Amino acid sequence: MTPTGHDEAQQPLDARVVRTRSDVLRAALDVLIDEGRDAVTHQRLAQVAGYSRVTLYKHWPTRADLLRDAFGGLRDAHHHTPTGDVRTDLIEELTAFRTAIERRRIDRALAALAELAASHPDMAEVRDDVVSGGERVLRGLLAPRLHGSKLEAATLMLSGAILNAAMMHGRPPADEVIAAAVDIVLDAAG
Amino acid sequence: MTPTGHDEAQQPLDARVVRTRSDVLRAALDVLIDEGRDAVTHQRLAQVAGYSRVTLYKHWPTRADLLRDAFGGLRDAHHHTPTGDVRTDLIEELTAFRTAIERRRIDRALAALAELAASHPDMAEVRDDVVSGGERVLRGLLAPRLHGSKLEAATLMLSGAILNAAMMHGRPPADEVIAAAVDIVLDAAG
Repeated sequence: MTPTGHDEAQQPLDARVVRTRSDVLRAALDVLIDEGRDAVTHQRLAQVAGYSRVTLYKHWPTRADLLRDAFGGLRDAHHHTPTGDVRTDLIEELTAFRTAIERRRIDRALAALAELAASHPDMAEVRDDVVSGGERVLRGLLAPRLHGSKLEAATLMLSGAILNAAMMHGRPPADEVIAAAVDIVLDAAG
Repeated sequence: MTPTGHDEAQQPLDARVVRTRSDVLRAALDVLIDEGRDAVTHQRLAQVAGYSRVTLYKHWPTRADLLRDAFGGLRDAHHHTPTGDVRTDLIEELTAFRTAIERRRIDRALAALAELAASHPDMAEVRDDVVSGGERVLRGLLAPRLHGSKLEAATLMLSGAILNAAMMHGRPPADEVIAAAVDIVLDAAG
Protein backbone atom coordinates (compact mmCIF):
# COMPACT_ATOMS: atom_id res chain seq x y z
CA MET A 1 0.00 0.00 0.00
CA THR A 2 2.67 2.56 -1.00
CA PRO A 3 1.21 5.98 -1.82
CA THR A 4 1.42 6.45 -5.58
CA GLY A 5 2.72 10.02 -5.10
CA HIS A 6 0.73 12.08 -7.57
CA ASP A 7 2.52 15.30 -6.66
CA GLU A 8 2.68 18.31 -8.94
CA ALA A 9 6.16 17.54 -10.28
CA GLN A 10 5.05 14.17 -11.59
CA GLN A 11 1.94 15.22 -13.44
CA PRO A 12 3.59 16.43 -16.64
CA LEU A 13 5.40 13.08 -16.88
CA ASP A 14 2.15 11.16 -16.38
CA ALA A 15 0.48 13.29 -18.99
CA ARG A 16 3.32 12.57 -21.40
CA VAL A 17 3.04 8.83 -20.77
CA VAL A 18 -0.69 8.95 -21.34
CA ARG A 19 -0.22 10.84 -24.58
CA THR A 20 2.50 8.53 -25.86
CA ARG A 21 0.38 5.47 -25.16
CA SER A 22 -2.69 6.98 -26.75
CA ASP A 23 -0.78 8.15 -29.87
CA VAL A 24 0.81 4.76 -30.37
CA LEU A 25 -2.36 2.77 -29.76
CA ARG A 26 -4.38 4.92 -32.11
CA ALA A 27 -1.71 4.32 -34.76
CA ALA A 28 -1.73 0.62 -33.88
CA LEU A 29 -5.46 0.29 -34.54
CA ASP A 30 -5.10 2.18 -37.82
CA VAL A 31 -2.24 -0.06 -38.95
CA LEU A 32 -4.14 -3.15 -37.85
CA ILE A 33 -7.17 -2.18 -39.90
CA ASP A 34 -5.39 -0.77 -42.95
CA GLU A 35 -2.38 -3.06 -43.24
CA GLY A 36 -3.40 -6.21 -41.35
CA ARG A 37 -2.18 -7.61 -38.08
CA ASP A 38 1.19 -8.76 -39.42
CA ALA A 39 2.04 -5.06 -39.81
CA VAL A 40 1.55 -4.37 -36.10
CA THR A 41 5.24 -4.36 -35.08
CA HIS A 42 7.34 -2.04 -32.91
CA GLN A 43 9.19 -0.87 -36.00
CA ARG A 44 6.13 -0.03 -38.07
CA LEU A 45 4.33 1.70 -35.20
CA ALA A 46 7.41 3.74 -34.25
CA GLN A 47 7.42 4.95 -37.85
CA VAL A 48 3.70 5.72 -38.06
CA ALA A 49 3.26 7.26 -34.59
CA GLY A 50 6.56 9.16 -34.67
CA TYR A 51 8.20 7.71 -31.55
CA SER A 52 11.46 5.82 -31.17
CA ARG A 53 11.47 2.04 -31.10
CA VAL A 54 13.14 2.23 -27.68
CA THR A 55 10.13 4.14 -26.33
CA LEU A 56 7.75 1.57 -27.76
CA TYR A 57 9.68 -1.35 -26.28
CA LYS A 58 9.64 0.41 -22.89
CA HIS A 59 5.82 0.56 -22.94
CA TRP A 60 5.21 -2.78 -24.69
CA PRO A 61 8.08 -5.22 -24.12
CA THR A 62 6.66 -7.85 -26.52
CA ARG A 63 4.67 -7.88 -29.73
CA ALA A 64 1.89 -9.70 -27.86
CA ASP A 65 1.64 -6.71 -25.47
CA LEU A 66 1.36 -4.40 -28.44
CA LEU A 67 -1.32 -6.49 -30.17
CA ARG A 68 -3.33 -6.89 -26.99
CA ASP A 69 -3.47 -3.15 -26.36
CA ALA A 70 -4.07 -2.35 -30.03
CA PHE A 71 -7.16 -4.56 -30.13
CA GLY A 72 -8.14 -3.14 -26.76
CA GLY A 73 -8.72 0.17 -28.60
CA LEU A 74 -11.87 -1.41 -30.03
CA ARG A 75 -13.40 -0.97 -26.58
CA ASP A 76 -13.54 2.77 -27.15
CA ALA A 77 -16.00 2.42 -30.03
CA HIS A 78 -18.73 5.02 -30.02
CA HIS A 79 -22.07 4.01 -28.54
CA HIS A 80 -25.48 5.59 -28.54
CA THR A 81 -26.70 7.12 -25.27
CA PRO A 82 -30.21 5.76 -24.68
CA THR A 83 -32.97 8.36 -24.65
CA GLY A 84 -35.83 6.19 -23.41
CA ASP A 85 -37.59 5.23 -26.65
CA VAL A 86 -36.45 1.65 -27.04
CA ARG A 87 -37.07 1.36 -30.79
CA THR A 88 -35.13 4.55 -31.54
CA ASP A 89 -32.41 3.59 -29.09
CA LEU A 90 -31.90 0.14 -30.64
CA ILE A 91 -31.84 1.60 -34.15
CA GLU A 92 -29.35 4.30 -33.11
CA GLU A 93 -27.09 1.83 -31.34
CA LEU A 94 -26.97 -0.50 -34.35
CA THR A 95 -26.44 2.49 -36.62
CA ALA A 96 -23.47 3.57 -34.45
CA PHE A 97 -21.99 0.08 -34.97
CA ARG A 98 -22.57 0.38 -38.71
CA THR A 99 -20.93 3.82 -38.75
CA ALA A 100 -17.85 2.44 -36.97
CA ILE A 101 -17.66 -0.23 -39.66
CA GLU A 102 -18.09 2.25 -42.50
CA ARG A 103 -15.71 4.90 -41.17
CA ARG A 104 -13.10 2.80 -39.40
CA ARG A 105 -13.56 -0.67 -40.87
CA ILE A 106 -13.70 -2.13 -37.39
CA ASP A 107 -15.20 -5.29 -38.92
CA ARG A 108 -11.69 -6.06 -40.20
CA ALA A 109 -10.19 -5.61 -36.76
CA LEU A 110 -12.93 -7.81 -35.26
CA ALA A 111 -12.30 -10.57 -37.82
CA ALA A 112 -8.57 -10.43 -37.09
CA LEU A 113 -9.29 -10.52 -33.36
CA ALA A 114 -11.59 -13.53 -33.78
CA GLU A 115 -8.90 -15.35 -35.74
CA LEU A 116 -6.15 -14.63 -33.20
CA ALA A 117 -8.38 -15.44 -30.23
CA ALA A 118 -9.07 -18.91 -31.64
CA SER A 119 -5.46 -19.90 -30.99
CA HIS A 120 -4.23 -17.53 -28.24
CA PRO A 121 -5.98 -17.72 -24.84
CA ASP A 122 -4.80 -14.24 -23.79
CA MET A 123 -6.30 -12.79 -26.96
CA ALA A 124 -9.52 -14.65 -26.20
CA GLU A 125 -9.71 -12.57 -23.01
CA VAL A 126 -9.25 -9.38 -25.02
CA ARG A 127 -11.96 -10.53 -27.43
CA ASP A 128 -14.38 -11.31 -24.60
CA ASP A 129 -13.70 -7.89 -23.11
CA VAL A 130 -14.19 -6.07 -26.41
CA VAL A 131 -17.35 -8.01 -27.20
CA SER A 132 -18.98 -7.60 -23.81
CA GLY A 133 -18.21 -3.87 -23.94
CA GLY A 134 -19.51 -3.70 -27.50
CA GLU A 135 -22.79 -5.37 -26.54
CA ARG A 136 -23.38 -3.53 -23.27
CA VAL A 137 -25.78 -0.86 -24.57
CA LEU A 138 -27.68 -3.34 -26.76
CA ARG A 139 -28.05 -5.82 -23.93
CA GLY A 140 -29.10 -3.06 -21.52
CA LEU A 141 -31.90 -2.06 -23.90
CA LEU A 142 -33.10 -5.63 -24.40
CA ALA A 143 -32.74 -6.97 -20.85
CA PRO A 144 -35.93 -5.42 -19.42
CA ARG A 145 -37.94 -6.96 -22.29
CA LEU A 146 -36.43 -10.39 -22.98
CA HIS A 147 -34.94 -13.08 -20.76
CA GLY A 148 -32.78 -16.18 -20.83
CA SER A 149 -32.24 -17.74 -24.25
CA LYS A 150 -34.41 -15.11 -25.96
CA LEU A 151 -32.23 -12.29 -24.62
CA GLU A 152 -29.13 -14.22 -25.69
CA ALA A 153 -30.56 -14.91 -29.14
CA ALA A 154 -31.77 -11.32 -29.70
CA THR A 155 -28.38 -9.86 -28.76
CA LEU A 156 -26.55 -12.28 -31.05
CA MET A 157 -29.06 -11.65 -33.87
CA LEU A 158 -28.94 -7.85 -33.82
CA SER A 159 -25.18 -7.40 -33.68
CA GLY A 160 -24.80 -10.53 -35.84
CA ALA A 161 -26.94 -9.02 -38.59
CA ILE A 162 -24.60 -6.02 -38.86
CA LEU A 163 -21.47 -8.19 -38.77
CA ASN A 164 -22.90 -10.68 -41.25
CA ALA A 165 -23.87 -7.96 -43.72
CA ALA A 166 -20.51 -6.18 -43.48
CA MET A 167 -18.33 -9.28 -43.54
CA MET A 168 -20.16 -11.84 -45.63
CA HIS A 169 -22.24 -9.61 -47.90
CA GLY A 170 -19.61 -6.92 -48.34
CA ARG A 171 -21.87 -4.06 -47.30
CA PRO A 172 -23.39 -3.01 -43.97
CA PRO A 173 -27.20 -3.13 -43.88
CA ALA A 174 -29.37 -0.26 -45.12
CA ASP A 175 -31.41 1.87 -42.68
CA GLU A 176 -34.61 -0.01 -43.45
CA VAL A 177 -32.98 -3.39 -42.81
CA ILE A 178 -31.71 -2.19 -39.41
CA ALA A 179 -35.22 -0.91 -38.58
CA ALA A 180 -36.75 -4.22 -39.72
CA ALA A 181 -34.32 -6.19 -37.53
CA VAL A 182 -35.26 -4.06 -34.50
CA ASP A 183 -38.98 -4.50 -35.23
CA ILE A 184 -38.58 -8.27 -35.47
CA VAL A 185 -36.99 -8.35 -32.02
CA LEU A 186 -39.49 -5.91 -30.49
CA ASP A 187 -42.44 -7.89 -31.93
CA ALA A 188 -41.13 -10.92 -30.10
CA ALA A 189 -40.72 -8.86 -26.92
CA GLY A 190 -44.46 -8.26 -27.08
CA MET B 1 -18.98 -26.16 -80.98
CA THR B 2 -16.52 -29.03 -81.07
CA PRO B 3 -18.03 -32.22 -79.70
CA THR B 4 -16.43 -32.87 -76.35
CA GLY B 5 -15.99 -36.55 -77.17
CA HIS B 6 -17.08 -38.42 -74.09
CA ASP B 7 -16.22 -41.79 -75.62
CA GLU B 8 -15.47 -44.84 -73.53
CA ALA B 9 -11.69 -44.47 -73.83
CA GLN B 10 -11.74 -41.03 -72.33
CA GLN B 11 -13.88 -41.73 -69.32
CA PRO B 12 -11.16 -43.12 -67.09
CA LEU B 13 -9.08 -39.99 -67.77
CA ASP B 14 -12.01 -37.71 -66.89
CA ALA B 15 -12.62 -39.70 -63.76
CA ARG B 16 -8.97 -39.30 -62.84
CA VAL B 17 -9.11 -35.55 -63.40
CA VAL B 18 -12.22 -35.29 -61.26
CA ARG B 19 -10.59 -37.29 -58.51
CA THR B 20 -7.36 -35.28 -58.59
CA ARG B 21 -9.27 -32.02 -58.39
CA SER B 22 -11.47 -33.22 -55.59
CA ASP B 23 -8.53 -34.66 -53.58
CA VAL B 24 -6.54 -31.45 -53.92
CA LEU B 25 -9.46 -29.13 -53.15
CA ARG B 26 -10.45 -31.12 -50.10
CA ALA B 27 -6.85 -30.84 -48.89
CA ALA B 28 -6.88 -27.14 -49.77
CA LEU B 29 -9.91 -26.45 -47.59
CA ASP B 30 -8.34 -28.43 -44.73
CA VAL B 31 -5.07 -26.52 -45.00
CA LEU B 32 -6.94 -23.23 -45.27
CA ILE B 33 -8.86 -23.92 -42.07
CA ASP B 34 -6.08 -25.57 -40.07
CA GLU B 35 -3.03 -23.60 -41.18
CA GLY B 36 -4.45 -20.34 -42.52
CA ARG B 37 -4.67 -19.01 -46.03
CA ASP B 38 -0.95 -18.23 -46.31
CA ALA B 39 -0.37 -21.98 -46.21
CA VAL B 40 -2.49 -22.57 -49.34
CA THR B 41 0.37 -22.93 -51.85
CA HIS B 42 1.07 -25.40 -54.65
CA GLN B 43 3.95 -26.81 -52.62
CA ARG B 44 2.02 -27.38 -49.40
CA LEU B 45 -1.02 -28.86 -51.18
CA ALA B 46 1.13 -31.18 -53.30
CA GLN B 47 2.60 -32.45 -50.04
CA VAL B 48 -0.73 -32.83 -48.22
CA ALA B 49 -2.77 -34.27 -51.11
CA GLY B 50 0.03 -36.51 -52.41
CA TYR B 51 0.28 -35.17 -55.97
CA SER B 52 3.22 -33.60 -57.78
CA ARG B 53 3.56 -29.86 -57.93
CA VAL B 54 3.55 -30.14 -61.74
CA THR B 55 0.09 -31.70 -61.61
CA LEU B 56 -1.17 -28.93 -59.35
CA TYR B 57 0.22 -26.21 -61.61
CA LYS B 58 -1.48 -27.89 -64.58
CA HIS B 59 -4.89 -27.64 -62.90
CA TRP B 60 -4.35 -24.29 -61.14
CA PRO B 61 -1.78 -22.14 -62.96
CA THR B 62 -1.73 -19.44 -60.26
CA ARG B 63 -2.13 -19.26 -56.51
CA ALA B 64 -5.23 -17.13 -57.03
CA ASP B 65 -6.81 -20.03 -59.00
CA LEU B 66 -6.00 -22.35 -56.14
CA LEU B 67 -7.43 -20.05 -53.47
CA ARG B 68 -10.57 -19.37 -55.46
CA ASP B 69 -11.34 -23.07 -55.89
CA ALA B 70 -10.36 -23.88 -52.29
CA PHE B 71 -12.87 -21.36 -50.93
CA GLY B 72 -15.37 -22.60 -53.49
CA GLY B 73 -15.40 -25.87 -51.51
CA LEU B 74 -17.44 -24.02 -48.89
CA ARG B 75 -20.36 -24.22 -51.33
CA ASP B 76 -20.62 -27.92 -50.64
CA ALA B 77 -21.53 -27.39 -46.99
CA HIS B 78 -24.24 -29.69 -45.75
CA HIS B 79 -27.78 -28.32 -45.66
CA HIS B 80 -30.98 -29.54 -44.12
CA THR B 81 -33.66 -30.85 -46.47
CA PRO B 82 -36.93 -29.13 -45.52
CA THR B 83 -39.66 -31.42 -44.28
CA GLY B 84 -42.54 -28.94 -44.21
CA ASP B 85 -42.61 -27.90 -40.54
CA VAL B 86 -41.03 -24.47 -40.78
CA ARG B 87 -39.91 -24.20 -37.15
CA THR B 88 -38.19 -27.58 -37.25
CA ASP B 89 -36.73 -26.84 -40.67
CA LEU B 90 -35.24 -23.50 -39.58
CA ILE B 91 -33.80 -25.05 -36.42
CA GLU B 92 -32.32 -27.96 -38.37
CA GLU B 93 -30.81 -25.70 -41.01
CA LEU B 94 -29.15 -23.47 -38.41
CA THR B 95 -27.99 -26.55 -36.53
CA ALA B 96 -26.39 -27.87 -39.74
CA PHE B 97 -24.50 -24.58 -40.02
CA ARG B 98 -23.40 -24.89 -36.40
CA THR B 99 -22.27 -28.48 -36.98
CA ALA B 100 -20.17 -27.38 -39.96
CA ILE B 101 -18.53 -24.80 -37.70
CA GLU B 102 -17.93 -27.30 -34.90
CA ARG B 103 -16.67 -30.14 -37.07
CA ARG B 104 -14.89 -28.29 -39.84
CA ARG B 105 -14.32 -24.82 -38.39
CA ILE B 106 -15.81 -23.26 -41.51
CA ASP B 107 -16.16 -20.00 -39.56
CA ARG B 108 -12.38 -19.63 -39.94
CA ALA B 109 -12.59 -20.15 -43.68
CA LEU B 110 -15.47 -17.67 -43.90
CA ALA B 111 -13.52 -15.04 -41.95
CA ALA B 112 -10.51 -15.53 -44.21
CA LEU B 113 -12.77 -15.29 -47.27
CA ALA B 114 -14.34 -12.07 -45.97
CA GLU B 115 -10.91 -10.58 -45.41
CA LEU B 116 -9.62 -11.53 -48.87
CA ALA B 117 -12.82 -10.43 -50.60
CA ALA B 118 -12.48 -6.93 -49.11
CA SER B 119 -9.42 -6.30 -51.29
CA HIS B 120 -9.76 -8.73 -54.23
CA PRO B 121 -12.78 -8.30 -56.53
CA ASP B 122 -12.54 -11.84 -57.91
CA MET B 123 -12.64 -13.20 -54.37
CA ALA B 124 -15.68 -11.01 -53.69
CA GLU B 125 -17.43 -12.99 -56.44
CA VAL B 126 -16.48 -16.26 -54.75
CA ARG B 127 -17.73 -14.89 -51.41
CA ASP B 128 -21.05 -13.80 -52.92
CA ASP B 129 -21.45 -17.22 -54.47
CA VAL B 130 -20.63 -19.06 -51.25
CA VAL B 131 -22.91 -16.81 -49.20
CA SER B 132 -25.89 -16.98 -51.54
CA GLY B 133 -25.52 -20.77 -51.67
CA GLY B 134 -25.14 -20.88 -47.89
CA GLU B 135 -28.32 -18.86 -47.36
CA ARG B 136 -30.46 -20.56 -49.99
CA VAL B 137 -32.31 -22.99 -47.72
CA LEU B 138 -32.81 -20.38 -44.98
CA ARG B 139 -34.14 -17.82 -47.43
CA GLY B 140 -36.40 -20.39 -49.06
CA LEU B 141 -37.97 -21.16 -45.69
CA LEU B 142 -38.46 -17.49 -44.79
CA ALA B 143 -39.55 -16.10 -48.18
CA PRO B 144 -43.19 -17.29 -48.02
CA ARG B 145 -43.57 -15.63 -44.61
CA LEU B 146 -41.57 -12.39 -44.71
CA HIS B 147 -40.93 -9.82 -47.42
CA GLY B 148 -38.65 -6.96 -48.39
CA SER B 149 -36.51 -5.54 -45.59
CA LYS B 150 -37.98 -7.98 -43.04
CA LEU B 151 -36.90 -10.96 -45.14
CA GLU B 152 -33.47 -9.40 -45.57
CA ALA B 153 -33.17 -8.66 -41.86
CA ALA B 154 -34.37 -12.10 -40.74
CA THR B 155 -31.90 -13.89 -43.05
CA LEU B 156 -29.01 -11.71 -41.84
CA MET B 157 -30.08 -12.16 -38.21
CA LEU B 158 -30.39 -15.94 -38.20
CA SER B 159 -27.13 -16.76 -39.96
CA GLY B 160 -25.53 -13.75 -38.26
CA ALA B 161 -26.41 -15.11 -34.81
CA ILE B 162 -24.49 -18.33 -35.53
CA LEU B 163 -21.51 -16.49 -37.04
CA ASN B 164 -21.45 -13.93 -34.23
CA ALA B 165 -21.51 -16.59 -31.52
CA ALA B 166 -18.80 -18.69 -33.17
CA MET B 167 -16.51 -15.83 -34.15
CA MET B 168 -16.95 -13.15 -31.52
CA HIS B 169 -18.05 -15.21 -28.52
CA GLY B 170 -15.78 -18.16 -29.21
CA ARG B 171 -18.58 -20.75 -29.07
CA PRO B 172 -21.49 -21.56 -31.38
CA PRO B 173 -24.92 -21.06 -29.82
CA ALA B 174 -26.61 -23.72 -27.66
CA ASP B 175 -29.71 -25.57 -28.92
CA GLU B 176 -32.04 -23.39 -26.87
CA VAL B 177 -30.52 -20.18 -28.24
CA ILE B 178 -31.01 -21.42 -31.82
CA ALA B 179 -34.62 -22.31 -31.00
CA ALA B 180 -35.16 -18.90 -29.39
CA ALA B 181 -33.76 -17.13 -32.48
CA VAL B 182 -36.12 -19.08 -34.73
CA ASP B 183 -39.09 -18.29 -32.46
CA ILE B 184 -38.25 -14.57 -32.51
CA VAL B 185 -38.34 -14.59 -36.29
CA LEU B 186 -41.48 -16.72 -36.53
CA ASP B 187 -43.28 -14.48 -34.00
CA ALA B 188 -42.59 -11.54 -36.29
CA ALA B 189 -43.85 -13.55 -39.28
CA GLY B 190 -47.20 -13.76 -37.46
